[in-house]
Amino acid sequence: MGVDARIDVITLAVSDLEQAHAFYRDGLGLESRGIVGAQFEGTDDQPAGAIAMFELEGGGLLNLYPRSELAKDARVPQADPAGAGFSLGQLVGSREAVDALLGRAQAAGATVTEPPHERPWGIYSGYFRDPDGHLWEVIWNPGGAG
Amino acid sequence: MGVDARIDVITLAVSDLEQAHAFYRDGLGLESRGIVGAQFEGTDDQPAGAIAMFELEGGGLLNLYPRSELAKDARVPQADPAGAGFSLGQLVGSREAVDALLGRAQAAGATVTEPPHERPWGIYSGYFRDPDGHLWEVIWNPGGAG
Repeated sequence: MGVDARIDVITLAVSDLEQAHAFYRDGLGLESRGIVGAQFEGTDDQPAGAIAMFELEGGGLLNLYPRSELAKDARVPQADPAGAGFSLGQLVGSREAVDALLGRAQAAGATVTEPPHERPWGIYSGYFRDPDGHLWEVIWNPGGAG
Repeated sequence: MGVDARIDVITLAVSDLEQAHAFYRDGLGLESRGIVGAQFEGTDDQPAGAIAMFELEGGGLLNLYPRSELAKDARVPQADPAGAGFSLGQLVGSREAVDALLGRAQAAGATVTEPPHERPWGIYSGYFRDPDGHLWEVIWNPGGAG
């Protein structure tokens, strides 16, 4: 018996919670629950609770949480903001939709790391980094899923 | 009109694809499509295609992809493996289920960063890091969702 194949929450570490919240809510247009949990003030040793939450289709959550507090909550060192330890992908319906979403992200303050292009495995995609350096890949897969 | 609130793919950068695949498939017990795409060999400049894919409930994918290739694919520097730039969360049904999943991950080669405990915001949770340093939080929320 293994673990469930399920990820309910994706939490991105951010350097400035208000700014990151503004990027995702106002810049990308995601609907936000706002910043919640500010009543949990934390200490040098215990993480504070303030967090921004975005509900995903299907019931999951995309959270934004300060780097310093995630490090305290998980008892690990703070992250290198410039790294590329992971990426989040979104499938869209056409080549033009890839270009449009990358354009919107760039207008909102993201960095497109290179122009979108065809990959050898048959997709058309491009990457942007959010203001904290987190990678998103926007993908059109003309061959269908997977 | 904003972007869709949807994450279809989560790709974790790993240092050794075979080892990481074994951790998630054999250690944690996730059902794997196996390592696919090895026919795309890549170059010094172009990423190779070999990737491990795990289907998530609801249709998303959890992918494992070499750090070097993700860096080439996205045209960004390679990540610091020790950082904590994000975490993936899984909600489970009881305090005992949190302990059991952390125990299973540890037995499979993960590092539990501290014993699970109650958080001020009402959840019981603990974190583990997979062999590449990626953080997972296992959560029991007695108050329900969110």
